Amino acid sequence: MVPRYARPTMSAIWEPEARYRIWFEIEAHATEKLGELGVVPKSAAKALWDWWATDPKIDVPAIDAIEAVTKHDVIAFLTWVAEQVGDEARFMHQGMTSSDVLDTTLAVQLARASDILLEDLDLLLAAIRRRAEEHKYTPTIGRSHGIHAEPVTFGLKLAQAYAEFARCRQRLVAARAEIATCAISGAVGTFANVDPAVEEHVAERLGLAIEPISTQVIPRDRHAMFFATLAVIAGSIERVAVEVRHLQRTEVLEAEEYFSPGQKGSSAMPHKRNPILTENLTGQARMIRAYALPALENVALWHERDISHSSVERFIGPDATITLDFALARLTGVIDKLVVYPERMQKNLDRMGGLVHSQRVLLALTQAGISREDAYAIVQRNAMKVWESDGELALLDLLKQDAEVTAALGEAELEEKFDLDYHFRQVDRVFERVFG
Amino acid sequence: MVPRYARPTMSAIWEPEARYRIWFEIEAHATEKLGELGVVPKSAAKALWDWWATDPKIDVPAIDAIEAVTKHDVIAFLTWVAEQVGDEARFMHQGMTSSDVLDTTLAVQLARASDILLEDLDLLLAAIRRRAEEHKYTPTIGRSHGIHAEPVTFGLKLAQAYAEFARCRQRLVAARAEIATCAISGAVGTFANVDPAVEEHVAERLGLAIEPISTQVIPRDRHAMFFATLAVIAGSIERVAVEVRHLQRTEVLEAEEYFSPGQKGSSAMPHKRNPILTENLTGQARMIRAYALPALENVALWHERDISHSSVERFIGPDATITLDFALARLTGVIDKLVVYPERMQKNLDRMGGLVHSQRVLLALTQAGISREDAYAIVQRNAMKVWESDGELALLDLLKQDAEVTAALGEAELEEKFDLDYHFRQVDRVFERVFG
Amino acid sequence: MVPRYARPTMSAIWEPEARYRIWFEIEAHATEKLGELGVVPKSAAKALWDWWATDPKIDVPAIDAIEAVTKHDVIAFLTWVAEQVGDEARFMHQGMTSSDVLDTTLAVQLARASDILLEDLDLLLAAIRRRAEEHKYTPTIGRSHGIHAEPVTFGLKLAQAYAEFARCRQRLVAARAEIATCAISGAVGTFANVDPAVEEHVAERLGLAIEPISTQVIPRDRHAMFFATLAVIAGSIERVAVEVRHLQRTEVLEAEEYFSPGQKGSSAMPHKRNPILTENLTGQARMIRAYALPALENVALWHERDISHSSVERFIGPDATITLDFALARLTGVIDKLVVYPERMQKNLDRMGGLVHSQRVLLALTQAGISREDAYAIVQRNAMKVWESDGELALLDLLKQDAEVTAALGEAELEEKFDLDYHFRQVDRVFERVFG
Amino acid sequence: MVPRYARPTMSAIWEPEARYRIWFEIEAHATEKLGELGVVPKSAAKALWDWWATDPKIDVPAIDAIEAVTKHDVIAFLTWVAEQVGDEARFMHQGMTSSDVLDTTLAVQLARASDILLEDLDLLLAAIRRRAEEHKYTPTIGRSHGIHAEPVTFGLKLAQAYAEFARCRQRLVAARAEIATCAISGAVGTFANVDPAVEEHVAERLGLAIEPISTQVIPRDRHAMFFATLAVIAGSIERVAVEVRHLQRTEVLEAEEYFSPGQKGSSAMPHKRNPILTENLTGQARMIRAYALPALENVALWHERDISHSSVERFIGPDATITLDFALARLTGVIDKLVVYPERMQKNLDRMGGLVHSQRVLLALTQAGISREDAYAIVQRNAMKVWESDGELALLDLLKQDAEVTAALGEAELEEKFDLDYHFRQVDRVFERVFG
Repeated sequence: MVPRYARPTMSAIWEPEARYRIWFEIEAHATEKLGELGVVPKSAAKALWDWWATDPKIDVPAIDAIEAVTKHDVIAFLTWVAEQVGDEARFMHQGMTSSDVLDTTLAVQLARASDILLEDLDLLLAAIRRRAEEHKYTPTIGRSHGIHAEPVTFGLKLAQAYAEFARCRQRLVAARAEIATCAISGAVGTFANVDPAVEEHVAERLGLAIEPISTQVIPRDRHAMFFATLAVIAGSIERVAVEVRHLQRTEVLEAEEYFSPGQKGSSAMPHKRNPILTENLTGQARMIRAYALPALENVALWHERDISHSSVERFIGPDATITLDFALARLTGVIDKLVVYPERMQKNLDRMGGLVHSQRVLLALTQAGISREDAYAIVQRNAMKVWESDGELALLDLLKQDAEVTAALGEAELEEKFDLDYHFRQVDRVFERVFG
Repeated sequence: MVPRYARPTMSAIWEPEARYRIWFEIEAHATEKLGELGVVPKSAAKALWDWWATDPKIDVPAIDAIEAVTKHDVIAFLTWVAEQVGDEARFMHQGMTSSDVLDTTLAVQLARASDILLEDLDLLLAAIRRRAEEHKYTPTIGRSHGIHAEPVTFGLKLAQAYAEFARCRQRLVAARAEIATCAISGAVGTFANVDPAVEEHVAERLGLAIEPISTQVIPRDRHAMFFATLAVIAGSIERVAVEVRHLQRTEVLEAEEYFSPGQKGSSAMPHKRNPILTENLTGQARMIRAYALPALENVALWHERDISHSSVERFIGPDATITLDFALARLTGVIDKLVVYPERMQKNLDRMGGLVHSQRVLLALTQAGISREDAYAIVQRNAMKVWESDGELALLDLLKQDAEVTAALGEAELEEKFDLDYHFRQVDRVFERVFG
Repeated sequence: MVPRYARPTMSAIWEPEARYRIWFEIEAHATEKLGELGVVPKSAAKALWDWWATDPKIDVPAIDAIEAVTKHDVIAFLTWVAEQVGDEARFMHQGMTSSDVLDTTLAVQLARASDILLEDLDLLLAAIRRRAEEHKYTPTIGRSHGIHAEPVTFGLKLAQAYAEFARCRQRLVAARAEIATCAISGAVGTFANVDPAVEEHVAERLGLAIEPISTQVIPRDRHAMFFATLAVIAGSIERVAVEVRHLQRTEVLEAEEYFSPGQKGSSAMPHKRNPILTENLTGQARMIRAYALPALENVALWHERDISHSSVERFIGPDATITLDFALARLTGVIDKLVVYPERMQKNLDRMGGLVHSQRVLLALTQAGISREDAYAIVQRNAMKVWESDGELALLDLLKQDAEVTAALGEAELEEKFDLDYHFRQVDRVFERVFG
Repeated sequence: MVPRYARPTMSAIWEPEARYRIWFEIEAHATEKLGELGVVPKSAAKALWDWWATDPKIDVPAIDAIEAVTKHDVIAFLTWVAEQVGDEARFMHQGMTSSDVLDTTLAVQLARASDILLEDLDLLLAAIRRRAEEHKYTPTIGRSHGIHAEPVTFGLKLAQAYAEFARCRQRLVAARAEIATCAISGAVGTFANVDPAVEEHVAERLGLAIEPISTQVIPRDRHAMFFATLAVIAGSIERVAVEVRHLQRTEVLEAEEYFSPGQKGSSAMPHKRNPILTENLTGQARMIRAYALPALENVALWHERDISHSSVERFIGPDATITLDFALARLTGVIDKLVVYPERMQKNLDRMGGLVHSQRVLLALTQAGISREDAYAIVQRNAMKVWESDGELALLDLLKQDAEVTAALGEAELEEKFDLDYHFRQVDRVFERVFG
């Protein structure tokens, strides 16, 4: 976790205190059910909840000190709680294993993290949508291979981003469901010493599904799917970040990250406004992708369980969710405040001497009865002249002077092929598809 | 693609001929709709389908020869089709771009590949289920950290694998939906030269959804999600493969891959039966995981599209699906024919002198009023003696001689704690959860 | 392996026949030494070499047929050789294991592949150097963050690429040494049944180092290092590919991939010249990077060996080397034929109204006694005006009208700060550092 | 960075204060040389060093506060230093860019981190060597595929680990050289505003090589190579960790991680001693491997530089080095205190009824004139009986009763084939190869 890429609400999920609070709740809920089942006295859960109602501070260093001796985190915690609550606490954790607590806690943490990420996505989607509608009909050149192709609108670019993040949202909902399960199944998952009713009770109280079959641990294919999903979202963040970086480059300059008055772009070149936020996002996307790998390697635990996944999750649990939260919020800010230059977009559109309309001319010639191959050759020979003039010559002028063209198409017909609005006839339909 | 890890049905999807057949169908369906819309003569589609009805052979070398000149695959194909069909063929591809054809073709290929993989998963699930039911109550030791923990049944091990692959199946259904979309939106995706009705028609005919917004290409977050899902499935394959490898090791030998009569395990050591199928699967899982990475990097295409994804997909499209198909089938074979040794499982269970029952004793002591800490110490001191005897001493015998134990628990009560069936009381409930 | 990304010399290394030829040589050299040591009759090696001298065809299908029965590749091969050579062949493979043959063969294949890759790098380096010297003093704008910074020369860009690939060459030499080892150590690597002298003899004949300690297999950290090195080289390929893609974009167009007369850029837009070779290289780089991952996972084999690495290497051995060979050759072609547009470079340089010289002005003001902060503010206020004029205003003009500037710097002094050559004073020195 | 996996010396390298100290030194050394060159007054460097000689505390929060306004870290630092040193400080950073400072600082940090890691490796190598010599002739079974193969010694296992980490050490020395370069080349790396002599001076003072050609940034192929090398080392750590985990499993139990008296293995099963340190190392190895990926993606910066690498390096710079330092130290501890059970090794060796000697018998039969195929069949039929008896029958006994065997080999000759020492004849030679 890099502090400058962390926001407090997400980070708080991963603080030791938050973790211990979840541990307590799991243990207390379980004890409650064990009391109902007659396995332990009902007074045990009452003692726990009474103490909890006093809103006790979790003394992390004290627990750490016990762990330094026992070298076992859950025993250390239980010992500390017993010191606070007294004799009744000995009924806690009956028939359970550490993994019951640890894995269910991770489920709660990842589910909470998902909720924050879903809110992040909602804010991002709202920002993209607002800007997409603002620029629904702002003409700009569409580029394939970085080369001018045909006109699009800036709104369409954003609508594509919207559709992509809407998919990401759906994926995250599915990923959240993957990991939001509760396992209280005891040693090697047989429920030999703990009734499945305890699991059902704790699951219900914590808003989790039950894990149908655990082997002391919740199976790690779930977490692999979760972190792989975050990696896909990171890819979508990178796509938008790269788009902004392209649009901001000096020769293009169709949009810019917002540049606050006090900000300095460079210690050496005061005129520079660099797309540092989106470059930064590009790097963060690389990290979030990388975190999926060890999660995938974690799946193949040995037999009923080993603990190799644990050190991995100590890293990627916080790092992937905190970084993605930060990245989504940063991207939302970028989109929200993005400075868009429609005049420059138009200027860029015009700089190719109308070459971007060549496809329409090609079609018109074909429809006028010229073979595809011949039509292609006609357009190409004129287009090449325009291309080589570096925007000095205009395709429309050249075509008007090409006998083979004028034989096939009238002047008005030809001019119509250079109309920008022609390209935007379906924008509304596409927006409907995307935004409903 | 490694030929020995390829099965013909899946490989066929990726043959040039199969690809060209899909190309033709897309073009012909599109021409059909263009005819209905009055953009091209209705006779064009008729000419195409008439030719198609003759079941023509696709002359791959002839198309390749044209591509060698044009350096453009779709133009080469259209040229070749025009040579076969004649003049009417010039109406094909009106308003479309190569990407419309290529991306929709990839969607068809990946959807078909998914269908095969779903069948593979069904066969695997059936095999696992059959063996799980066969060994529902076959006792075996559960192991955490590779160390004997408490008894489970071999059926439970398999039930966990079943639940995991059932999740994989669900994920694959979702992943299939991710990539099964059709885009016929023309240059930079504006539909300027091709009515969205064409896309809808082709999508419907090919059993695909429409792509709500494309930018000449289908967005690659979809493919990233698809290949990431295959990577997760690979992880689950590895988990079972590693389990079998562990079970087959000389000291454990609770199960073995089927060893055919003619097979030689080693050129040097004729007694050896090596788990080579599952080791092989372990390696294949590593490959399938690796293929997800470039798919994730493919998401951030430049502007409306670049073609960097294409070389990646030429590799991973076939390699990931063919290898996963092979791996799933191989794993099904392994499970199906797995030689299981229940006697050895029992022998291994017994070799620890009853230590695996220590948890139950611990609980009983706690419930008899001894503090958790004290009970732990009592069990631990006896357990350590057993442990150090390397299975010569039996925990039950030692406990019967421990005054603190006998003060708390009667002999019958103590003996009951060493009952194996106790651990299997919830097996039926877990099976119900998993198999319904 | 994707056929279109494969070149014959590299592919040939990975053909079954080439592999069997290496197998034979290893076995024959080993038998030779075993003969000298008196372990087997000297006539055995003679019989093998005599047969070999007849330049026999390797009958791959026949060997495959035997393997289909034995399910063991090396035994199948030995059986087939024995059928050809006769009785003396039974002395082959004495005290050896399959891994001795397989791993040493892989070493030979990877060493040969490395030699081809080193030649590829030499050709690439030569091409880069030639173009670097051609454009040693061709002015072009240096860009940080995609934003104009200060002038560089196109030769400097290429010199950086040269230095980077020179490092890659060094790394590949080291990587080749990592994997070019011979192991003939018998079962579990103890040399119990084969004298180390055999290993030394075979190593010397094949141009390999001996493996100091093998455990039946050559340790896979060597291969991990090898494929990781290829991944780094792929990164450098990507860097140059991305640079060319940037330079070719419509608004920049400072260089272009060579566009052959017959080539069609797009079926729809005949004017388009797309950087498809470098986009293609970008994708290939992603693949080569991905192949390093399973190689890294291969290191942790179980005990003395397992065979999980084998399926991985069947993929990445050919795929990584063949693809890298293709990519290096393609990149060499791109560099060799790159169409460079110095006029456009100059035009781009000029379009910022001289802002690129602001750093020099800043320094001059500081040296004239103005505080860094004040100088920054002075330059910034003028630079911002130029920036906002979109290249209509010139920084030099504005500075000449800024009283605080003229108070500190004379006109001649100011004009000198806008001299392009100033930036190229150290080009020669840098070239010396790079090219020696 | 996960605090529990961090050791203070390595962590300190990555503290803000340490970073600022290096920044200062770079600036002061550069100012010194600029003074010598007459670019700035010599008094400037003097003022800086005089202040430095007072051992000033770096006020990190004060610098942070300035950065919060300027949004530029180096300017913030320079401003703060100027506040401390006074007027002379304005001569700092002349002609330099932030990257000159940042990249050279990263070089110093990674070089220092490498030095710690090299020490870690030395300690690990020493520990492995000590244990290898201790167990040079401790017999244990060699296993391929997890199946008993032939005898080795425990010392040989460790000698292999030694050789592997010795290679890792060499690789790290090379990786350190990759990143230990100094770049002070000014904007876009042309040295236009800073003489190369400054770079040479700073490099020499900091113990770095000069960067032959930088483009404002040090090229990231160097860092990719560095982190890829750490990933390979992680693979070797995992190999040993997995070996220990295997050896400690209940059925094998040939070695165990040291288990301190107060330590509790499991809250539920007091007899359990789990290989948690090596499982933990397995997970850490996955993380260190993962960190190589974004480093590989960082190579392809845009044009002369972008800053996407920066966020990646804020994570992986500390995380990869701190975790590897921790892992190497932990592994050293594991090896150092590893509890080895030679009796159990012997017991396991014996449990296969002598099957492990079958290879020697096979060879003897072949040498006695029986064809390889026949000899194989003879050994196999006896070996299978032993195998199926689960260690009850002994191979030697069966062979003595096999007429085809006794026809070929005398009893004494046969018995000699079951001699354990035979396998260890070359141990000394291998040790010499490894330890010199």
